[in-house]
Formats: sequence, C-alpha cells, structure tokens
Amino acid sequence: MVKGFQSTSMNDYQLNTTTLIRHAVRNFPNREILYRSGNQIHRYTYREAFARMGQIANFLENQLGVKPGDKIGILDWNSARHFELYFAIPGTGATMLQMNLRISPEDLSYVTNHSEAKYIFVDETLLPLAEAIAPHLETVKGFIIMSDKPSSEIKTALSPIYHFEEKIKQESAEYDWPMIDENTAYNACYTSGTTGKPKGVFYSHRNIYLHTVEMGAYIGVNCDDTLLVIVPMFHAQSWGLVHVAAMMGSKIILPGRFTAEDTSVLVDLMLQEKVTLAAGSPAIFLPMLHYIRTLEEKPDFSKARFLSGASEPPVSMMRGFKELTGAEIIHAYGATETTPLVSINYRLNPSLQNKLTEEEKWDLRRKQGLPVTGIDIKLCDPDTGEELPRDGKSIGEICLRGPWITGAYHNIPVSESQFRDGYWRSGDAGTIDENGYLKIVDRIKDVIKSGGEWISSIDLENTLMGHENVAEAVVVGIPHAKWQERPLALVVTKDRNPVPREELEELLYDHFAKWQFPDDILFVEEIPKTSVGKFNKKEIVKLYENLYLQEGGKIPSEL
Amino acid sequence: MVKGFQSTSMNDYQLNTTTLIRHAVRNFPNREILYRSGNQIHRYTYREAFARMGQIANFLENQLGVKPGDKIGILDWNSARHFELYFAIPGTGATMLQMNLRISPEDLSYVTNHSEAKYIFVDETLLPLAEAIAPHLETVKGFIIMSDKPSSEIKTALSPIYHFEEKIKQESAEYDWPMIDENTAYNACYTSGTTGKPKGVFYSHRNIYLHTVEMGAYIGVNCDDTLLVIVPMFHAQSWGLVHVAAMMGSKIILPGRFTAEDTSVLVDLMLQEKVTLAAGSPAIFLPMLHYIRTLEEKPDFSKARFLSGASEPPVSMMRGFKELTGAEIIHAYGATETTPLVSINYRLNPSLQNKLTEEEKWDLRRKQGLPVTGIDIKLCDPDTGEELPRDGKSIGEICLRGPWITGAYHNIPVSESQFRDGYWRSGDAGTIDENGYLKIVDRIKDVIKSGGEWISSIDLENTLMGHENVAEAVVVGIPHAKWQERPLALVVTKDRNPVPREELEELLYDHFAKWQFPDDILFVEEIPKTSVGKFNKKEIVKLYENLYLQEGGKIPSEL
Repeated sequence: MVKGFQSTSMNDYQLNTTTLIRHAVRNFPNREILYRSGNQIHRYTYREAFARMGQIANFLENQLGVKPGDKIGILDWNSARHFELYFAIPGTGATMLQMNLRISPEDLSYVTNHSEAKYIFVDETLLPLAEAIAPHLETVKGFIIMSDKPSSEIKTALSPIYHFEEKIKQESAEYDWPMIDENTAYNACYTSGTTGKPKGVFYSHRNIYLHTVEMGAYIGVNCDDTLLVIVPMFHAQSWGLVHVAAMMGSKIILPGRFTAEDTSVLVDLMLQEKVTLAAGSPAIFLPMLHYIRTLEEKPDFSKARFLSGASEPPVSMMRGFKELTGAEIIHAYGATETTPLVSINYRLNPSLQNKLTEEEKWDLRRKQGLPVTGIDIKLCDPDTGEELPRDGKSIGEICLRGPWITGAYHNIPVSESQFRDGYWRSGDAGTIDENGYLKIVDRIKDVIKSGGEWISSIDLENTLMGHENVAEAVVVGIPHAKWQERPLALVVTKDRNPVPREELEELLYDHFAKWQFPDDILFVEEIPKTSVGKFNKKEIVKLYENLYLQEGGKIPSEL
Repeated sequence: MVKGFQSTSMNDYQLNTTTLIRHAVRNFPNREILYRSGNQIHRYTYREAFARMGQIANFLENQLGVKPGDKIGILDWNSARHFELYFAIPGTGATMLQMNLRISPEDLSYVTNHSEAKYIFVDETLLPLAEAIAPHLETVKGFIIMSDKPSSEIKTALSPIYHFEEKIKQESAEYDWPMIDENTAYNACYTSGTTGKPKGVFYSHRNIYLHTVEMGAYIGVNCDDTLLVIVPMFHAQSWGLVHVAAMMGSKIILPGRFTAEDTSVLVDLMLQEKVTLAAGSPAIFLPMLHYIRTLEEKPDFSKARFLSGASEPPVSMMRGFKELTGAEIIHAYGATETTPLVSINYRLNPSLQNKLTEEEKWDLRRKQGLPVTGIDIKLCDPDTGEELPRDGKSIGEICLRGPWITGAYHNIPVSESQFRDGYWRSGDAGTIDENGYLKIVDRIKDVIKSGGEWISSIDLENTLMGHENVAEAVVVGIPHAKWQERPLALVVTKDRNPVPREELEELLYDHFAKWQFPDDILFVEEIPKTSVGKFNKKEIVKLYENLYLQEGGKIPSEL
C-alpha cells in the first residue's frame, strides 16, 4: 500500500449506520413504516421507530448492562422490532448476531456459542426453537421476549427472561447516540455451508455503509420508493435493501412471518401499497408470477425493480413480470461473504445496445451482470491461482476483493483454500466477457473436467429441464479412463412418462458441442438429495464411480 | 468515539480513485470520451485514455522522479489531458494542485508556493499566465507543456520544460497502479476568499470516493448517461461529476476552453451528443435558455439533469428549461470546503406531495434542498454556537460536518471563527424546515440585524430586482441608533428610467412584513463592486455609516 501526502483537512467522521437512520429521521420523519403482525397491518413512522430505537438502546445499557463489543442475537421474522434492532443494537457499539432459524438447532447453538452472544431477542412464535437450543448455550445470560401479549401470558422454559415491550416502556426515547468507530463490527452472519461447521462473517459499520450507498447508486433508490422486505432479515442483512431504504427515506413494509403459501398475501400487499422495490429468489418470484397470471386485472408494477438472487432467473420469469406487470427483474449475484452485492445485471452495457437482438438482450439478462464499483473480480485457475482471460469462454474460479468482501472468517485461521493473494475464493466457476459480464456456470466442485476442457453441469441440467416432460435432471462428472471425467445425466420424467433420448439430444444440440453431451442419460425414479433438498452430487458420483473407468464398462439399468 | 468489537473479517481494501477509473475501463472499455480542441472534435475511449494515464504515470516516475506525497499543479481548461491527469497524478500517490486561472497572478503564485508544488502541467494557451508567475515560484522544478504542436514550435520563457506528448510517447502504457492509502491527499483546491490569502483544502482519496458514490446515488447517474463537463476542472474537482461519470461508465464530453460567448457552441454540442448530465451556475444556464428560446425547434433534453449551484436558480429559469426542453434543473448547494455536495433539491420530499400546489412546488425548488446522507447540518447562533430549531423560520449559521467536509485548512491552525465543535462554519445564514429543507438567506456578514430580528438582504434584493425596470439592487444593514441596524436599498434603474417607490413597495408587500422594508430606497447611477464584480457591501456600508446613527439623519441625495 502506498501512502502519499496525508490529507489532514478532511475530518475523521465515521461511516456508521446511526448516520443512515438519523438521516431518514431528520428529513423524512413522517415517512411510513408498515408492518404485519399476525394478519393485522400496523403503520407507524420513522420518527416513532427512532424513538423506540432510543428506548431499546437505553434498555440495553441500563437494564442489561450491554457494553460496546458485546454480541446480541436475534431470532425473529421480518418484523418492525427486528427493524428497530437493526439500528438500536449496533448504535450502542454492540454487535448483532443474525440467527438463521432454518438451520439445525445443533448448528444454531454452535453459532451462538462461537460468536459468544450475551443475550438473545426472541419472537414469541420462535420460543420452541430458543428452548431447544437454550440448554446448549454457553455464553447467553438472558432472553428478551418479543410479543404483543403481556408477560403474564407468556409461557416459556427460558430463563431469565425480559419482556421487550414492558421493559423498553420504562426507558426514555432520548439516547445520546455515540459516534461509532467505523471498524466496529455491525453484525455477524454465519454461512450455512453444507460441509463442516457454519463459518462467521463479521461485517463492519464501514462495510455496511459503503454497501448501502453503492446499492443505492446502482439500483437508483429514492425517497418515493416503497420497499417490501422479502429476504429474511437473518440472511446477510436481508441483502442490504433495508439500509438503502432507510438512508433514502423510502417507505418500508415488513411482512412479518410468511411462507410459500402466503404468495397471494404478499402480492396483495404489494398491490395495495404500490411496492416499487423488493429482493428475493426465483423460488419467491415464480409462484408470484403464477398467482399474477390468475388475476383478472394485472397489477401495475411499472415503477418496480425486483432484485433476484440465489440462482439464475429463467428468462420466462423475467419476461413474464415485464410483460404482465411492467416490473423489472434484476439479476444480482453475491454471497454471505460479500455483504452480499457483487454484481448486478440492470442497465445494458451501452456497447451492446445496437449489437444484440431483443431475444439476445433477454438471454444476456440471465448472466450475473457487471460488478459494482469497488468490487475487484479476478477469474482464476483454481489450482494455480493464475489469472484467466476475460474472453467470455475461459472458465475459472471467481475470486473477489473489495471494501465489503470478507478477508477472513471469525476465529478461523486464513487458509489458501479459502483466501488467496488477498482475494476470497467464492467456490463458483464462471466466465467474464470483454464487456465485463460475469456468468456463473457451476460450483467449482461440480464442474466436469473432460480432456482439459470444462463442462458446466448447471447448463446441461437447465437445458434438460427445459423439456416439458422432464421433472428433474442432474448432471455429474464421472471418473473416466481416458478423459479424466465425463458427464452423466440422471433424469426423472413427469408422471413417469417416457421421454425419447433423441428429444433431449435435440435440445442439447442448440446449446452444446457434441463432446459436451452426457455420455449417458439415465432415466431414474428419484435423484438422491441432501437434507436441505439439493442434489447430492457427491453420492451420485459415488454410485457410478466405476462406470467409465474401464472401457466398455456397463451401466446399471436401475438405481 | 466508541469502539466496539473490531471487525477483522472485512479486508482493508482502500477507497481510492484508481478503483473508480479501473472499474470504467474494465467494464466499459469502448465508451467514448469526446474532447474539443480549438474547434475540432476528437473522440477516443476509456481504454485509450487509461493507456495514456499509464504513460503519464510512468513519465512522472521515470523522467520527473515524482514520489508519493509530491504536489503537482495543473493549469488547464476542461481538456482530455486534464481528465487523464485527474487519475494519473493521484494514481501514483502524488497530489494534484488545482490552479484557478481566474485569480490574480499574485494569489496564484502564493497558492503554488504554499502547497509546495514541484511541477506544473500547463496548457499552451496559458503559457503567458505561467510565465507571469514563474519568477515568484519557490518550489517548482519544471513545467510540462501540453500542446498539439511539436516542441520545436513552442516558444516560452519557462524553463526547464518538458513536452507532454513527446515525453509520454516514450513510456509504456503498462503501469503497476499501486493500492493508494485512502487518507492520501488526492488533490488540493484553494478557496478564493475575498478577504485574506487563499486557503487550501486537501481532499483525500477516501473523501473523493465517498462523494462520488453518493453523488451517483442521489442524481442517479448510470452507464447510458452523457456528461458535459461545464464547471471548470480547476474548481473543486469540477464539482465531482467527472468522477461519477467515470465510475459509472458514462460518456464524457470535455468542451475545452469556452467563454460566455460560446453558449451556442455548448448547446449545439449538447444537442448533437444527446447530453443528459451537466453542472453549472445560473450564469451559464440563463444564456443557454435565452439561446434555446431563439431556436425554431426546441431541443429534447427530457432525460437530462442539470445541477445548478453557486446562487439561487430563478424559478423562471427552472420552468423554462422544463417546459421548453424537458430538462430538470436541480438546485445543489456546496462550497470548496465541502467537496462540494452538501444538499440537493431533486426529488420532492413525499410528505409534501399532496400538500403543495404546483406553484408552491416550483417555489420550493429555489431552496437548497435536503442534505445528502452523511452530511450533518447544524443551524447555529453564530455568536454562541447554540443549536437553533429546524422550524423554517429561525435563521442561523449553517455548520457542517461529514466524511467530505474539511476539518482544517492546510497549514493554518484551526480557529473557532472557522471551525466549532468539529463543524465547519460556512459563513452562510439559512433556515432548515421540519422536512429537512435548507434555505440560504444570506451571508452571515451581510444579514441585517434589526431589533433582535434578522432580515435577509438577498431576499430583499431579489424582490426588488423582480421589477421590470430595475437593473440592479443591493440592500445593506446600516448602523442604527435605536434598532442596531436598518436596511438601506440602492437601486439602479434600467436606462435611468425613474421607478416610483410605491411600485417597489408593492412588490415588497407580497413577501415581507412592513418592519423588514428598507428604511430608504436610493436611486443611484452605479453600485460599488469588488474586483470580481460582486456588490462591495463593506464599502456601501461605509458610505452611509452615519445615516441612521442620529435620529433625523439626512440622506445624501446623490452618490
């Protein structure tokens, strides 16, 4: 790092989240925050939320003795109280611990102990989960119960407990918010890796601040926007849109607890409140689109931008939203280790404006898009670390650094398998083209290495699943005597109706060279899955590991 | 400042301007940069500009021996070379010195010596100015001449000289851009205060980076924008839009040298290149509007946002642009000490959406608007420093802090007249209303203190100048035996046609209470001005200082 003449004339004002929320409260005191509790809709304002944040901060210090540096867990849905805690806990100098209620109680106990959380805020509906982990907790000194019911009606085995509403009511709304050093940890979120224990990422205030401002710049968030908070607030700060909305004085909608069955409830809420911003995965947006198709009168979401992450959005989904509602689905890419925004596929690179047909433009939108400023992406050979060309063809591991990319996991020594030359290794295999567009083709561990070339298992799977009679398809690399690995496909057909292999190959011809075709397509009853429902590729490879090791090896006819 | 648990997991990637330009070059290599040299239009790309930046950086190090921490001056218009220097000089760890070619040679020499500049880049057309100051320079070791002519045709008394194009041609475009520590000074700009010596503000890379990202968020700049760089690049980084455009991969137009007479040239350029972004003052936009009125076919600027600063934009100008061209004139407020963005009047605070008539909305746009996130504005009693209420009525001094507000002047001890409690004192008198809107009413030193109340001289002047036969009007506070001060107006009428005092008073009745009216309105031939053309209020007060000290004091009938 090069130091030049040090600027002494800029003051050392710190980048922290108190600045974000205070900005909203000072300039947009009457902007609405709407929250759903049970099936009831409540409304209050930034001014009122900030007053409660002050009460919470006073409660933490005066009644719990919380000090800067303490870690405080939260077990809650996307609620108004969760929103208040997002600014109140870190505003005192303490650190929030995001507790993922979808992971196993065993992992959740591990996360709580590993982060040394002192207290846990628990929504009443999650008491059974808190009770399940409580006996295993080593550092937690008490639980704050969040409920609309009075404490006399709360039944729980947890102890000691504090009743959130009754306790904060005793406190003043005036709190002397300190200037928090920007390198203080704002919150911690643990990855839910499929292998090994969850790993902790501790985000700093500076990191959150920069991520917020830049997300605002790239999505164009402003005070007349209305955000529906869909991504769980226990996942990487709900992907950061909550902070952007607060910074800009947007209206915020907190839908509380909802499940896949509540799609119609969500859409109705979006319609009624004229939502213009949301983030979610195709798993959320696809059922939404199905529901919208059933509506006589299509909703007008022409001012809306919906961020879609987690997996590649189908073109039909993006077009469907655009054509039926006017909404823009924006593909974005990131991970817990990246706060999460890495890249976004929103405005078309002007160099391509006149070069692509409309169809090609839609197809391009499936890519992960252009990195946002400050994010330095390097495409690397996973074995040697050597940088690969940005030619849209070379497949390598996506390695990242930048002001909000993690440089280490909490209390785990930095290893070269996770970090190399200051870059975090994402484990994703991808390409970058000459216009900067990033495309993820696979997980590094799943990519198929055939005769020195790489084949994307995901692309093959998506193509096979494009057949109307295919229910599921998985492609894995099987060790091969001559080619190192060769692709093998397992296919489950809909209602067990047979699908001629030729029809599948016809689909493949459109997108792949012949040498990339699976050597075999096996029709099976079921595909082995992991506990969280993903294809268990490790097990599948194991089942077929000897298939191509001897030439002329026989394929088992049934699983 | 409170330090909590220090986040160790975020890496210490630095915020610097190399990141901004590299982002553009990687993702938008073929985006165009257009520049005007003489009357010729040239075009090249970000990729080509970046290659030249590499050559310049190598030239600085290899041929001039420039080291991190050195200060390097620039005397140039808004040129392509100036743009390249914006990233090349600070990219090596050296600091740019913005040299304002409008200030006196004496002040310019002072600025160069005070900042200890080692080299100066000079555009050929500015050689006479460089030659005028050269004998007084104490630290400068050489001059780099920027010209399209070969060195054999350059005649100058400067020595030693280096011919920019010939020298950089000898260098490789490959330069190993270092990671610059974010607290390194990116550039220095000196205020052109009317009293005393210019004072230096040294901006850090961090400061510029944050300002860039946030300006992008608030104005909504993106890759399909086209920026015309109007604000001189020697004024507070041309107000920062150059950096935002580079960060986003916008097209950039550098118009070279132009004067007020070139209005039609600028507008034609805007039309031809479909400009969507620019910044300037009403002194630039008013003649533009006059020219546009003369055009048969009105230009379509419906995608354009033009930032207007320096003074309050007349509503007629904002409406004129909107109605004739579709362009949005956005009033913004700032100063050299603030990088400069403090506040912006763009999107209407949604709380006012249904409360104001269309006329009232236009009128509101004259205000300086809402602060951007991170900028902490305090309205203070200038004498005691006590905070005043945000009620839209209380007038106080605008005091500022934030990540890009200066905390000191270069090599000048911090004094309470300039900084108080960590806030920079702007010297501007203003109000803030309950919706956060800032309004500047006067310079603190010009505000009129009458019987414990404050009267804005600027408001009175603007109202008087609203009369069709008034050419100029100035209002000053004259010491008064009973009321401390009372307003006195001097008016110059158009073509010396008399204007009845009653007509002026009628205008005042619409906006002011009777006690705020000037005690006298004097019709004069001329109003005393300073060397830069501003009303010389100090001298005017001196001329009339005894007028109201004795009751019944007489008014001189002529100046």
